[in-house]
Amino acid sequence: MPDSSIPRTTSAYDYPLLIKSLLFCPAVDAPEQEIVYRGSFRYTYRTLHERVRRLANALTNLGVGPGDTVAVMDWDSHRYLECFFAVPMIGAVLHTINVRLSPEQILYTIDHAEDDVLLVNSEFLPILEQIRGRIDTVKNYIVLNDEDKLPATTITFDGEYEALLKEAATTFDFPDFDENIRATTFYTTGTTGMPKGVYFSQRQLVLHSLGVLAALGTASHGRFHRQDVYMPITPMFHVHAWGMPYVATMLGVKQVYPGRYVPDHLLELVEKEKVTFSHCVPTILHMLLKHPHAQRIDLSGWKLIIGGAAMSRTLCIEAMQRGIDLFTGYGMSETCPILTFAHLTPEMLELSSEEQALIRCKTGQSIPLVDLRIVDSEHRELPRDNSSKGELVVRAPWLTQGYLKDHKASERLWEGGYLHTGDVAMRDQRGYVKITDRTKDVIKVAGEWISSLELEDIIAHHPAVAEVAVIGVTDEKWGERPLALVVLRPGSSVTEKILSHHVREYADRGQVNKQVVLLRVRFVEAIDKTSVGKISKVILREKYGSVP
Amino acid sequence: MPDSSIPRTTSAYDYPLLIKSLLFCPAVDAPEQEIVYRGSFRYTYRTLHERVRRLANALTNLGVGPGDTVAVMDWDSHRYLECFFAVPMIGAVLHTINVRLSPEQILYTIDHAEDDVLLVNSEFLPILEQIRGRIDTVKNYIVLNDEDKLPATTITFDGEYEALLKEAATTFDFPDFDENIRATTFYTTGTTGMPKGVYFSQRQLVLHSLGVLAALGTASHGRFHRQDVYMPITPMFHVHAWGMPYVATMLGVKQVYPGRYVPDHLLELVEKEKVTFSHCVPTILHMLLKHPHAQRIDLSGWKLIIGGAAMSRTLCIEAMQRGIDLFTGYGMSETCPILTFAHLTPEMLELSSEEQALIRCKTGQSIPLVDLRIVDSEHRELPRDNSSKGELVVRAPWLTQGYLKDHKASERLWEGGYLHTGDVAMRDQRGYVKITDRTKDVIKVAGEWISSLELEDIIAHHPAVAEVAVIGVTDEKWGERPLALVVLRPGSSVTEKILSHHVREYADRGQVNKQVVLLRVRFVEAIDKTSVGKISKVILREKYGSVP
Repeated sequence: MPDSSIPRTTSAYDYPLLIKSLLFCPAVDAPEQEIVYRGSFRYTYRTLHERVRRLANALTNLGVGPGDTVAVMDWDSHRYLECFFAVPMIGAVLHTINVRLSPEQILYTIDHAEDDVLLVNSEFLPILEQIRGRIDTVKNYIVLNDEDKLPATTITFDGEYEALLKEAATTFDFPDFDENIRATTFYTTGTTGMPKGVYFSQRQLVLHSLGVLAALGTASHGRFHRQDVYMPITPMFHVHAWGMPYVATMLGVKQVYPGRYVPDHLLELVEKEKVTFSHCVPTILHMLLKHPHAQRIDLSGWKLIIGGAAMSRTLCIEAMQRGIDLFTGYGMSETCPILTFAHLTPEMLELSSEEQALIRCKTGQSIPLVDLRIVDSEHRELPRDNSSKGELVVRAPWLTQGYLKDHKASERLWEGGYLHTGDVAMRDQRGYVKITDRTKDVIKVAGEWISSLELEDIIAHHPAVAEVAVIGVTDEKWGERPLALVVLRPGSSVTEKILSHHVREYADRGQVNKQVVLLRVRFVEAIDKTSVGKISKVILREKYGSVP
Repeated sequence: MPDSSIPRTTSAYDYPLLIKSLLFCPAVDAPEQEIVYRGSFRYTYRTLHERVRRLANALTNLGVGPGDTVAVMDWDSHRYLECFFAVPMIGAVLHTINVRLSPEQILYTIDHAEDDVLLVNSEFLPILEQIRGRIDTVKNYIVLNDEDKLPATTITFDGEYEALLKEAATTFDFPDFDENIRATTFYTTGTTGMPKGVYFSQRQLVLHSLGVLAALGTASHGRFHRQDVYMPITPMFHVHAWGMPYVATMLGVKQVYPGRYVPDHLLELVEKEKVTFSHCVPTILHMLLKHPHAQRIDLSGWKLIIGGAAMSRTLCIEAMQRGIDLFTGYGMSETCPILTFAHLTPEMLELSSEEQALIRCKTGQSIPLVDLRIVDSEHRELPRDNSSKGELVVRAPWLTQGYLKDHKASERLWEGGYLHTGDVAMRDQRGYVKITDRTKDVIKVAGEWISSLELEDIIAHHPAVAEVAVIGVTDEKWGERPLALVVLRPGSSVTEKILSHHVREYADRGQVNKQVVLLRVRFVEAIDKTSVGKISKVILREKYGSVP
């Protein structure tokens, strides 16, 4: 095969995709644009750039260089934004510590990520005090303080953030690096085991920013543009606040960082700073709408990406009634995160609120470059008929290439060369995906998917049933078959045959996959629960999974 | 330095940026969207994808593989669009032949690009007949025919495009390649010498598409979105029709390919197909507006990128009066091409037409990732004061890495690690660039730029002057100084001193750089012209450039 790589000229600049590239346009076009912290502190993009250079000098003075890891414990702040840029721009890795983890888990992630420097908001000193003697890798501590006085602490700091920046030089010539160096790391908590580390390269973050902006810009509603005012309401420590601070900065819009999420403060910021673009999980939206202050504030025109969990139609309609232009965005820690948006077409925008809400609550259409597939157990792509369900697998230029130092879990994540989202979904003819289950909640019977959640719902409708949990049990002939663990109502009695017949009626009406007739039933006294009272399928599978 | 490249998992997919990636979303979201050729032929994106696969098979059957070059001679067509995708998607290089070159120049580019296969519209057979005996590299010829019958020809074809596609299989599993392989090549004609070949990798075309879409989507006006209907009016053989067919396809919009540019046909397509987004050079716009049919057609809401040459304010205002939303886009063959857009802010959209036209005619603001600098002769960046003029140099992820097989010209293009646009420009505080000259038209006096065009304009205002041309001549003390070659009006007489005084008055009023006082004047009988009657600065520099 002849060499067809493009010829290079000695002097030609072979442009690497680096975090610093995101700053070229706003530095030139929007130097006077504002960045606001908690409504009380504000500066311009010009100052952001200067402080990014100062921070780069301050870190370099401490000996931080390419390949070192700088960890941050903070709420959403302008200082965090400065770290989003300065840390990767000197070739170091930014570890965004999830401050909601237990102190033991935080210690685990600091050790696991091999953090060299730790920047910590004084609010989190009590956490740090609990684990300080056991941190092995961190050489330097920097404190971030919003109060007049630093709280009493036994930790020795190498400096206070603002003082270090003040002392640091204002110029810094950011070098080029291989675009594939690691820029960020953070930890995602599964239902079992210790948190797992995911990681993203500078190239991946730049491509994610471009892809998201191209998708958000060209939409018919909820579009992100240069006149918007941006405020994150998913934390910066969680998947880079969905990568949106990078997108917002590249676009050069006004940005508002709210610190800790306190409902009335968030609402006040939306009103006073005229916030027009945000993103949050359904729980936060619910909390904001129910807050007494919410009624006093005009929320109309507020564009809101909802993700992290499925949004209920009721919540969606309630928000729409307040004039909020909300839609689903889908992704996960492993995917940087954004893969899809549930934008509506102009025709869909003519539909009733109820019909619109159905679409706004879908998972959405994939954004540019995202190769999203719904496949069966043989990895064959399923038809886009809005009913064939399969596992959602994906390729995109911004997916974690594995879990940090966890080869086995990495291989499982990427089995067959596609990232396994662990979600079960279907897709309609216009490309709108809808997630219906987690794969761990489905049972593969003769290669067909049965939703354990759906089957539980059907069985629970029977008057004799008090409680039910469905799991898959291995079966020689069918691969798996469903097993229902049933607690009967006091005084009721029912046989396996009667319950099977009850389920078959749903199958006969086409409301559920016909493989449900392979159901086995086991009557139990109680169903095992986790410490927080949720049905523990993990325990149930251990206990009954191999029962014939 | 510790290795900080991201760890890879064996099974993880390391996503290359390939042309095929642009098709992922529209294939899923817009399978029924239309593509129209000359208003008479139309099909869906679903068919586009099928025909791209068929074409890939047809070419593979001919023995075309990675690294081979496939050349196309056609007007703007759906077939050309199919080649835009299928050729790079099998790893081959697409050579878009400029059909406006002379047959000898076309022969030169075919030889120089080492074309293996040539697809030619039957309309261009007369050109091919003239050079056919002298084409050395082409092994296969394919004819594209819109007529009922193929015109008489002595050339032996390996097939007719539609017949080949009909015979070809409909499935093709497009493999992955290194994203840095060459995807396209075309030739740019300078004022001297033979055409020079530029080239772009698959990665560069993908990044250009994303960057352009992110910029066009987030603008306050003239934005490109999913409901638009796109029609190119800069040829597909010229810088990939500004890369817009790739952008439009990624977005999944309706596309209209007009064939040869015939004014009344173009106007008819705009009206009948409801075209809302196009791009053209000022000359075409002028031609369309002056066409008698234009008055009958509602052009309001037509978004139009104007590039290739500076647009006059008069033309801009005239188009605005017809309701056209037009703005400048800037770039060149060497830059893929797009670097800037002259979009207006909402506040600017409130200005009068005259004031708006001033901005719409500017070069514009750089699009994401574009590092555009205006520098002095020492490569120091100049202040953004809307008056400091310097050379426009650029870095972006989509610039040609050189001229094909022309090491010397490549090094000149990339001297110092920045691509030299050859344009002289200034920039204002909001980042809007305005090009004022070509570098070859400026004279560097003591490190300061003097515009020869401006100086010619001033001298021409003197009543005794019939014609004037200004060039730079080498000067030991000043580096260069301006020399005016002046033809006097019959019966007039004037001295060097008088003309110098005339020029100095403009300098004293601050209307021109004070270095103009170093002007030397030489009175001549006639000023040398090119064959087409333009002043030949090349001849003048040869003749007078070293005159003391």
